[in-house]
This record gives sequence, structure tokens and C-alpha cells, in this order.
Amino acid sequence: MRLVYLGLKTMDESPHQTLQGLRSLPFHVGGTQVLGLACVVITGVWMGSYHGGYAWDGSGKEFNVHPLCMVLGMVFLYGDAILVYRVFRNESKRNVKILHAVLHFLALIVSIVGIVAVFDFHNQQKIPNMYSLHSWCGMLTFLFFCVQWLMGLGFFMFPGTLLAMRSWYLPLHVFFGLTMLVMSLATCLLGISEKLFFSIQSTYSQFVPEGILGNVLGLLLIAFGITIGYIVTREDFKRPPHPEEEALSVHFKTLTEGGSPSSP
Amino acid sequence: MRLVYLGLKTMDESPHQTLQGLRSLPFHVGGTQVLGLACVVITGVWMGSYHGGYAWDGSGKEFNVHPLCMVLGMVFLYGDAILVYRVFRNESKRNVKILHAVLHFLALIVSIVGIVAVFDFHNQQKIPNMYSLHSWCGMLTFLFFCVQWLMGLGFFMFPGTLLAMRSWYLPLHVFFGLTMLVMSLATCLLGISEKLFFSIQSTYSQFVPEGILGNVLGLLLIAFGITIGYIVTREDFKRPPHPEEEALSVHFKTLTEGGSPSSP
Repeated sequence: MRLVYLGLKTMDESPHQTLQGLRSLPFHVGGTQVLGLACVVITGVWMGSYHGGYAWDGSGKEFNVHPLCMVLGMVFLYGDAILVYRVFRNESKRNVKILHAVLHFLALIVSIVGIVAVFDFHNQQKIPNMYSLHSWCGMLTFLFFCVQWLMGLGFFMFPGTLLAMRSWYLPLHVFFGLTMLVMSLATCLLGISEKLFFSIQSTYSQFVPEGILGNVLGLLLIAFGITIGYIVTREDFKRPPHPEEEALSVHFKTLTEGGSPSSP
Repeated sequence: MRLVYLGLKTMDESPHQTLQGLRSLPFHVGGTQVLGLACVVITGVWMGSYHGGYAWDGSGKEFNVHPLCMVLGMVFLYGDAILVYRVFRNESKRNVKILHAVLHFLALIVSIVGIVAVFDFHNQQKIPNMYSLHSWCGMLTFLFFCVQWLMGLGFFMFPGTLLAMRSWYLPLHVFFGLTMLVMSLATCLLGISEKLFFSIQSTYSQFVPEGILGNVLGLLLIAFGITIGYIVTREDFKRPPHPEEEALSVHFKTLTEGGSPSSP
């Protein structure tokens, strides 16, 4: 089997080695789920315990919806949507594609709720929008995500798209998909830092619990991103080629033509 | 030629297509240099024009050395060190390896100056160290970088290292090398945001020039990172296999054994 890591080098590996490598996949995936859920829970507890909980009333409680939704949507669900091609590597491509699209759709909806929450809060409180680096990065990431979602739909779900176009777009879809997860995570780090400077600027430097909680959340988000990145770029974790699904090696023919290949 | 993008899928591509793709490599590399230099210059001008310039006297002017050195060392030089395997794809592997190590050594030295500057400034001004998310991410990235530098030296420069160990470590070196560039960039974004909240918190929301300059610097850093990531993960930009250099496909035998294969 040919191994390629980030496109740098190739080497030959025996089926035995590949199998050995594969045994660690569930642990890696389990790690992402623990880290991702920890991020969602810590964000929820942080906003719940230190900032009064959640409401949709234009107060700070409405703002609290924003970080929770963004971490849930643009980090956890988005990351899991990327992972499905590794987790269900032996399932029908058609079903995995649908799951990928559904998870990204959920991520989109949850993110929209989170973005509406912060804009509504700002408008109610007469706080200007879109001036900070966090907001610029976040909006850029979200707009890229929408474009990527629509292009993914057009290229891989629309039956009329030529296979040559799909094979041209696939590597860009993969590269920018992972890039956007990284941008989401960087935006979260900016958001954590901004929130801490707004809330506890005078005591942040004294290592107060809220500051440490925010910093730890940042590190967990980074660990989540690194683990996802490692799983999807490690070659022996990739979906094995299923000859009955092959169409210019792009693997997308089956869905649009209604095929449903069985798992090997 | 087999094409592999981030390990997801493979497809066959003709030599003609590969050649066509390669024609765009200089433009991509040129783009990174324009973006990287713009980041260094804007950081320099920002600290020079808005914050009084540079000195080593424990004042804010000593702090100003920090962002300039970090962007120069951990972003520009670090990014260029990664790029050498693509820019000099037909040169002797031995020479490219030396250039890679030298650029990373320069990045290390410049970063150390930048880190000493901010610690010295904090200590002189009685400002606590290491409490912010920026400082946690930055220190983590720098420590990882030191470990990676030493491991790179041990695995790829030390003559006694077994080739099997090199082939095991190479994909990890590549993955974590790119991961650390991303972490550097995220740390820079946090630093920009922190600096703006310290300096212009009261006027940042009025879209003052310094705020916009800082935000634009953040976007340029992101663009630099995306372009570097795209170049090093695009398969047809990779260094072509040179049979005379091959040793378990790890390409590192020549340096340690003193060989100097000619370019094809």
C-alpha cells in the first residue's frame, strides 16, 4: 500500500503495518470526541456559571448563546463532519456523503443561531459590530464555509456535474475544508481572549479561575484541531479504495447515479 | 503520476498536467514572499509609528521588539524554511536540508530575542508573565519548535540514526512542522488582538486606523499561512523522486553519508 503524508514522501508499507496503524484509529477518534465534548461543556459551563446563563432577551445572557453555538457548530459538528470519511471508512460512500452533508448542515444552522445572537445582543446594547479581529476572522470563516457548503452541494450532489470537474474540485474542497476548521479554531481563541479582556482585565494577570478556565479551553480547542488534522492527513487511516465505487478515483459517482455499493 | 491530496484520494495525472501545474509554483511562492514581507513590514511600521520605535531599555520600545521578532522568526523565516523543499525541488537534497536547518536556526535565534524582549520588558515594568492565552499558546508553540528542532537534528542530521527510524519520524516531522506554523500564526492573531485591546480599547470600536492596521495584519498572516499550507500539501509541487538519492524513500541518506547527488 502506498503511504503519502501531506504529499511530502511516499513509502511502501505492508498490509500488516497498515492494519497495526488502523488499530489506533478508534483511539484517535475517541480522543477527538472527548476533546470536542470537553470544549462544548467547558464553554457552556463558563458562560453558565460565570456570566449568568442563557436567554434570548438582548442582555448578556443572549451574548452567551454565541460562544456556545460557535464551539458546537463551527468546531465540534464541523470537525465530526470532516471525520466521517475516516470513521465510516468501510461504509457505503453514498451514506457517508449524506452524513457529511447533514453534519455540515447542522453546523451551519447552529452557527447561524450563534451569529444572530451576538449581532442581536450588540444591536440591543448599542455596541458596534465587526470592528475586532475576532469578528473579521469569524465572518471571513463563516462566509468561506457558506461558499464551500454550496460548492460541495453543486459539485458532489448535483447529478449533472462532470466527473472531471469533481476531480478538479475535490482536493480544493479537502484543503479549504481543513483550513476553515483551523480558521474556526483561531477565531475561537481570539473570542476567548477578547471575552477575558472584556470581563476580567483587571484580575486576569492574577491567574484567577475564570482566566485559567478560558486559557485551558483554548488549549483543548488546539488539541482537538491537531487530533482531527492528524487523523485526516494520515494516509493509512484513509478510506480504502472500493473498486465498485471508483469513477475517476473521485468516489462520487455512486450517490448521483443512485448506486449503493456494499461494504467490503 | 499519482496525485494525493491530504491523503484523501488518488488520481492519475499526465506529465503534461503536472508540468502545467508546476508553472504556477513560482507565482504561489512569490505570493508567500509578498505576503510574508508585508506582514514583517506592517508589524515593524505599526510598532515604529504608533508605539515609538525600538530600544532595549525596559520601556515600551523594548516590548516593540517582541512582535517584530516573532513575526520575522516564527512566521516569515519559519515559513520559508518549510518552503525550501518546494522552491529548490531539483537541487541536491543535501544542500536543501542544510538550508532548511539554517533557516530554522535563524528563526530560533530571532524568536529567542523576541521572547527575551517581552519577558525583560514585563520584569522591568513589574507586569506579570504568562497569564494570557497568547502567552500560553506562544510558549507552547516555542517549546514544541525547540523539541522539533532537536529531533530534526537527531533524526535527520546525526549519521548514526537508522533509516527505519527516519522513515518513521518523517511524517510526524512534516505534520507537526506545519501544525506549529499554524499555532505560530494563531498566537500572532492573539497577540495583535491583545495589543489592540491594551492600546486602543476605547477607540477600537470606532474603526480607528491602528485598529484597522492590526486587523489587516491579521488577515495577511492568515493569507500567508494558507498559501504556504497549499504549496506544501499540493502533490504536484512536491520534490520529484531522484533515484540516486533514494534510501527507503526518506531522502536523507545523502547528507549523513556525505553524498551529493547532482540535479536531474
